[in-house]
Amino acid sequence: MTSFPSKLIEDAVNEIAKLPGIGRKSAFRLVLHLLKQEPAFTENLSNALTRLRNEIRYCSQCFNIADDETCSICANPKRDRQIICVVENFKDLLAIENTAQYNGLYHVLGGLIAPIENITPDMLKIQELVQRVQNEGITEVIFALSASMEGDTTAFYITKQLKHLPHLKITSLARGLPIGSELEYADEVTLGRSIQARIAYGS
Amino acid sequence: MTSFPSKLIEDAVNEIAKLPGIGRKSAFRLVLHLLKQEPAFTENLSNALTRLRNEIRYCSQCFNIADDETCSICANPKRDRQIICVVENFKDLLAIENTAQYNGLYHVLGGLIAPIENITPDMLKIQELVQRVQNEGITEVIFALSASMEGDTTAFYITKQLKHLPHLKITSLARGLPIGSELEYADEVTLGRSIQARIAYGS
Repeated sequence: MTSFPSKLIEDAVNEIAKLPGIGRKSAFRLVLHLLKQEPAFTENLSNALTRLRNEIRYCSQCFNIADDETCSICANPKRDRQIICVVENFKDLLAIENTAQYNGLYHVLGGLIAPIENITPDMLKIQELVQRVQNEGITEVIFALSASMEGDTTAFYITKQLKHLPHLKITSLARGLPIGSELEYADEVTLGRSIQARIAYGS
Repeated sequence: MTSFPSKLIEDAVNEIAKLPGIGRKSAFRLVLHLLKQEPAFTENLSNALTRLRNEIRYCSQCFNIADDETCSICANPKRDRQIICVVENFKDLLAIENTAQYNGLYHVLGGLIAPIENITPDMLKIQELVQRVQNEGITEVIFALSASMEGDTTAFYITKQLKHLPHLKITSLARGLPIGSELEYADEVTLGRSIQARIAYGS
């Protein structure tokens, strides 16, 4: 698996092998597979990737990944518009969606406060969250953040900026999650239960 | 992992998951990775795949995969042009190249004779091989085919069409390969030795 007698193959293998978890051997196997299929197969794959990367946007309200100005969750009239679930990223949003236990809106922070990694509050969508809560008649904010130092710090920081709102309920996922674990690896049952049994933040 | 709140992601995941050995979960992980990288990353990947599929050709002489009219092996003036190694496909050719024990030319049949799967001699590049051997002063033909019924049948069929050439040496890979095994899975040392210790065909 040293080199290939074709620059086209060499280039394709190199590009595929840049993907995480795919080595040069696997990349070469994929290349051979593509060569065996109709050209349309590769065309479709290639177009889907290009469109994904070039056309994807972020929802102007919740910063979820979106195909349009507004994401499919914010645009869905059946969702409860008075509850916001605060998540770190799109993966965590999806994990919660897949429990089918939550029918409110989301707010994707884009990360967690982590001074050691130089991630400061101004790099996250925190001000946008505070604005939404103040202006849109939100009655509950649920923190669905990882049970880690960074998750706790972020929830604490945001809570400080929301506590002047007297009628706002601030909750967090029930700590059924093992402490120190990453939210995205939790199984759906545990995660579903912890959103049902969510507790008042700070209790 | 049921569905995604974005058609762009859904499409990309579906296309990636059509590749062998990649499920929807892995496909989604790759999609998230692409979204985290610069757009140029996806652009390069996508272009390499499209170019691979649309520009790849088959060598007009040996039917190896080629970037041009002639493959890089046939075009290499340092290769011994009097020996042809007959292989089933490009993967087997590469396996032999990687042993660094062979310096002649190749002939890629595009398959093996397999009546049960309706693969008949006329579907393979056998006539082209016979023409090359007759017209280009070839002194030796080496069969580097899988040690299987199909490999043996194919070698036998080709030999019949070449045996009127009195000065042609016909050899096959030493049967150091375990019988019934596929050539592409042989390790390089075994394969290298079996090409060095190749034996007169039929002995």
